[in-house]
Amino acid sequence: MTDEPAAPDIDARHAEKMKKKKAVRDKILATKTVEKGLIIIHTGKGKGKSTAAFGMVFRSLGHGFPVAVVQFVKGAWETGERFALERFGDLVSINTLGEGFTWETQDRQRDIAAARHAWETAKDLIRGGAHHIVLLDELNIVLRYDYLPVQEVIDFLTTEKPTYVHVVITGRNAPDALIEIADLVTEMEMIKHPFRSGVKAQKGIEF
Amino acid sequence: MTDEPAAPDIDARHAEKMKKKKAVRDKILATKTVEKGLIIIHTGKGKGKSTAAFGMVFRSLGHGFPVAVVQFVKGAWETGERFALERFGDLVSINTLGEGFTWETQDRQRDIAAARHAWETAKDLIRGGAHHIVLLDELNIVLRYDYLPVQEVIDFLTTEKPTYVHVVITGRNAPDALIEIADLVTEMEMIKHPFRSGVKAQKGIEF
Repeated sequence: MTDEPAAPDIDARHAEKMKKKKAVRDKILATKTVEKGLIIIHTGKGKGKSTAAFGMVFRSLGHGFPVAVVQFVKGAWETGERFALERFGDLVSINTLGEGFTWETQDRQRDIAAARHAWETAKDLIRGGAHHIVLLDELNIVLRYDYLPVQEVIDFLTTEKPTYVHVVITGRNAPDALIEIADLVTEMEMIKHPFRSGVKAQKGIEF
Repeated sequence: MTDEPAAPDIDARHAEKMKKKKAVRDKILATKTVEKGLIIIHTGKGKGKSTAAFGMVFRSLGHGFPVAVVQFVKGAWETGERFALERFGDLVSINTLGEGFTWETQDRQRDIAAARHAWETAKDLIRGGAHHIVLLDELNIVLRYDYLPVQEVIDFLTTEKPTYVHVVITGRNAPDALIEIADLVTEMEMIKHPFRSGVKAQKGIEF
């Protein structure tokens, strides 16, 4: 609890170590010169896949860059993000086209039609090139259930996406073939979850 | 590429399966009745730790809940979030108290003093109870370098945090003892990173 005493030796070693670290880092950064729109995937069973994507969306909005969001699976819970996005007015295009989680609807043909409609909208938004990021929220779920052919998505992204547009794709179970063409893939792993101890989903945290 | 033909058998089986899934899910949800402020940790080497935390912050702001952010390590790059947060005016308290990445400063005593100052601010904000979420961004880094004693942080969170306040802690290498007292822990794992192919950090994506 007390302040750490001054320790000149530790401090000197630390300064030396950090100086080296900075030199290595600066050198690495100098080699990174390519600017291009990335294909980014957030997958895994843990929390934070969509939330981190929304964080990126807000970061872009902070810079004044327009952003589009296509929700492939409409969660009954995600209202906070929508309210927050609406603050940014015309900078944001929100497209909620999913029909609710599939275990809510129990109607496969309706889900397939909704997925197709969402994907056509996504293609128009990406091709249009007016948005810095196009977020395809929960697209992986739709691919997982074979509501859309993954090869069609890959073909489109690798041939028709304008170079400078970033596409962010979320959802667990990202198909391997999609991971193959992505630039940045993060897996969110659940280490501990409060549901296990009976805590319910809470406003402003889960939704 | 063609629309999937109607397949009554598949669809019927699907409806049955999803009905069961919904029943199980509804049953589980009914047991989740506890509401409490969580201690949430985002750790791991992957991207998205702070970004997902910022996503939660924006979700809360969307609901009109006040939020406080304490940045323990000031990154030169994180400007997008700040601009976006400023849109929410008085709902947000932003406290950037870190002095830059430690390999930028190379001054250990200054970093320790900065960490102490940030932690005192964090304690006041948490104890104050006026914020739905208090985000302690990159606190794990500070703990990792022993700029703050982890036991002091644990003692405070377990005894002085008001029940309803959510605390979100980010940074790689979260200490085991901190994970022990947390309610929700997610590890972000890097599967693929564009730096490997020479792509540089880009405005609106990385910062």
